[in-house]
Amino acid sequence: MKKIDAGVKNFMCPMPTTLVGANVSGKPNYITIAHVGILHSITVSVSMHKGHYTNAGVKENGTFSVNLPSAKMGKVTDYCGMVSGKEIDKAALFTNFYGKLKTAPMIEECPANMQWRLLQTVDLPTHEIFIGEIVATYCDEELLTQGKNVNLSKLDPILFSMSGARYFRLGEEFARAWQVGRELITKKVKFLSAPPLAQD
Amino acid sequence: MKKIDAGVKNFMCPMPTTLVGANVSGKPNYITIAHVGILHSITVSVSMHKGHYTNAGVKENGTFSVNLPSAKMGKVTDYCGMVSGKEIDKAALFTNFYGKLKTAPMIEECPANMQWRLLQTVDLPTHEIFIGEIVATYCDEELLTQGKNVNLSKLDPILFSMSGARYFRLGEEFARAWQVGRELITKKVKFLSAPPLAQD
Repeated sequence: MKKIDAGVKNFMCPMPTTLVGANVSGKPNYITIAHVGILHSITVSVSMHKGHYTNAGVKENGTFSVNLPSAKMGKVTDYCGMVSGKEIDKAALFTNFYGKLKTAPMIEECPANMQWRLLQTVDLPTHEIFIGEIVATYCDEELLTQGKNVNLSKLDPILFSMSGARYFRLGEEFARAWQVGRELITKKVKFLSAPPLAQD
Repeated sequence: MKKIDAGVKNFMCPMPTTLVGANVSGKPNYITIAHVGILHSITVSVSMHKGHYTNAGVKENGTFSVNLPSAKMGKVTDYCGMVSGKEIDKAALFTNFYGKLKTAPMIEECPANMQWRLLQTVDLPTHEIFIGEIVATYCDEELLTQGKNVNLSKLDPILFSMSGARYFRLGEEFARAWQVGRELITKKVKFLSAPPLAQD
């Protein structure tokens, strides 16, 4: 294996592609955003260029939605990232609905939907980072497993790689977290004296 | 389609599973973190519980690394999220290397590696959010396409779903961003008067 110095590149990917919704001047609008993050539990970040139409709505109401489109919605999702709500009524593309929050519009055609209360806005030179806390979560009936988890394979999310600007689908589930590595815990002494072991 | 009120749940997933590295008291340590985010271009967030051993190293040096393991490293990656550097020398599991930054250790067995300069630490009650800017990026030679992008399929990343605590692999690439939706731009008038159209 030979490492290449790739310069200064963000290879942290893929990220989930979302449609962020907000009422702007009382009317629903959506924008495609994959620059998202989990900060902690039910607290997330959504990063939006200041030039976007939707930002004003997030700040005006202190609420926004995050909708997860399926791969079959790839074309319309990509489109919503290329045209502005200043010129196009993107809400007309979808069936809109509201939940607990009456100012954070959601997209019925997206299998999973969340409404967020804006906690804080981080003001960067070109972007605003909206930090929000979930208020309510909705999803298609067949998506919920054990009454609490989302069946990601059924959701079939759009995964975005900033490097190369590509959309990927989700692959197969291959392990359970906080479980698959458990058997190694008993081997810790061996590990401490063993040669480098990255693959098991 | 019927929407279910799922309560207050974070369905924003999957996220890339990373191994975050830092020198702690001069020795490399790694911890598994999937609560990450892209804030803007080469600025990212990494969220770590205050109880973790690695946090001190990030703050001590003002640097950290983000390493992207492959799915075949699932077991050891999961393990690194379950045991503490206070007790286990996790660096002994891997071949360690340094790049431009001499205090942000990286894992040679991970196909892609980044070194970050700490810009800001957001202090939450239980977590610290480390906001960093990329200083240098490294990857396996065969991973780089067109001399600048990462071949994500070859990287074969570990995708984490907090909902259900599952690891997934990446699926196939199905479209190019800022391109697949382009053809809809010419149809905007039709859209404005058309019934809801979420699938194309």
